Amino acid sequence: MLLNICSSLSFSALPNQKPLKIDVAFTPETIDPLNIYDKSVLIVDILRATSTIVTAIENGASYLIPVNTPEEAFKLYEQLNKNAILGGEIEGKRIKGFHLGNSISEYTSSIVKGKAIIMRTTNGTRAINACKSAKNLVIGCFLNKTACCRYIIELGCDILIVCSGKEGSFGIEDAVFAGACVNVFGQLMSNIEKTDSALACEMMYQQSKSDILGLLRKSEHGKYLINISLEDDLILCAKEDISTVVPIYFEGKIINSDQ
Amino acid sequence: MLLNICSSLSFSALPNQKPLKIDVAFTPETIDPLNIYDKSVLIVDILRATSTIVTAIENGASYLIPVNTPEEAFKLYEQLNKNAILGGEIEGKRIKGFHLGNSISEYTSSIVKGKAIIMRTTNGTRAINACKSAKNLVIGCFLNKTACCRYIIELGCDILIVCSGKEGSFGIEDAVFAGACVNVFGQLMSNIEKTDSALACEMMYQQSKSDILGLLRKSEHGKYLINISLEDDLILCAKEDISTVVPIYFEGKIINSDQ
Repeated sequence: MLLNICSSLSFSALPNQKPLKIDVAFTPETIDPLNIYDKSVLIVDILRATSTIVTAIENGASYLIPVNTPEEAFKLYEQLNKNAILGGEIEGKRIKGFHLGNSISEYTSSIVKGKAIIMRTTNGTRAINACKSAKNLVIGCFLNKTACCRYIIELGCDILIVCSGKEGSFGIEDAVFAGACVNVFGQLMSNIEKTDSALACEMMYQQSKSDILGLLRKSEHGKYLINISLEDDLILCAKEDISTVVPIYFEGKIINSDQ
Repeated sequence: MLLNICSSLSFSALPNQKPLKIDVAFTPETIDPLNIYDKSVLIVDILRATSTIVTAIENGASYLIPVNTPEEAFKLYEQLNKNAILGGEIEGKRIKGFHLGNSISEYTSSIVKGKAIIMRTTNGTRAINACKSAKNLVIGCFLNKTACCRYIIELGCDILIVCSGKEGSFGIEDAVFAGACVNVFGQLMSNIEKTDSALACEMMYQQSKSDILGLLRKSEHGKYLINISLEDDLILCAKEDISTVVPIYFEGKIINSDQ
């Protein structure tokens, strides 16, 4: 599908143009909607919303609708005449009355293929909704890292990576993934400018890249998930580049960018 | 002088007690004054307020009073019958009518010894004033790193390192210094718990420790200072452990903890 490409010429064709800026926001709370209208925003919630969304799209879900509350989810479910799957969590656990929780392993092809999914999570879907005004809104995680970075580069706009964090506070797993992307951008583009937060994330990634699963295990949210018997989710979320789908947010829905 | 020591026993004497928590706030804006009443807070503004404060105390200044605005500074100056030095900056430059700017090199012994200094800076003094409700409030920078960490450990409370940042946004130089402190705490104490932000800062420090001056040079604020001809300040602020003074905030003033 067509997206808003910022320039009709590819970035690499214009060596003298202004450097493309790469920035990272550690939480969505700091985002000013008026400041992202001309940017490509990459939403990250490694544990687990964006990992789950990428998996659902990879496994053939038609689209996902991110909502902020369970009430909003149930209302929309009725409006869609129950032709949808309710997925998501509160405090890491499946919401009462929902079909699925927020574990990658639940979003199998046999369950989600061709289906609409209404999704409510504590941090990830809130981050998506906070960034609706972005020029381009892309969903990424370790599973689709390189595909997602390549897609964003093609858009040619300044890039803001938004970490979903943990209810307004910093989450290291999102920042390390942001750093992995900054690293890919640096390898694939020459004329870029990294903000302090982008530099910081790249340093975290350099320190963690040899053991992403170990990083997830020692993160605060990783330890919480282990504590509620969801350690397997960490193993699934740590896999790198096993998918080439790039989910994007377009007119209220998260769809496959190839759609 | 006596401070509020959280426990009459030293930390290392109690192997079975709760781990001491080490946290980092990337900006003072996220601080809830009600959450720091039982903590030791370390204020950091590497470029340049806390580096300058440590230098002023090292060179014999009686005390500093941090204020938020130039107007507040001038008013206090009159109240003190002009028996004080006005120091600080706006946009990195000396404030009109002030005696000194915010460069370490200005705060020599011959100028500050025995004097009171009224200080206004954009980020550092604001951070100090935002954390007045802390149980203990300590001022640190690379110059007094180890002395400052040892002093804080003796206090025995949970530790929050507050980065002053840049007008509400992340500054990498403060975070790298926070990571240097997390590293020292980890070396000197066994029973500690690091939050995600503390872990992240330690990773940044591991990536930067071989060239702190290089890190300051590539930071956003460092580049700005170079641009306004203040590169020498970066060289002075990058020196490690050249001072053993530990400035603390006590009853409205920043004083030497040995006082």
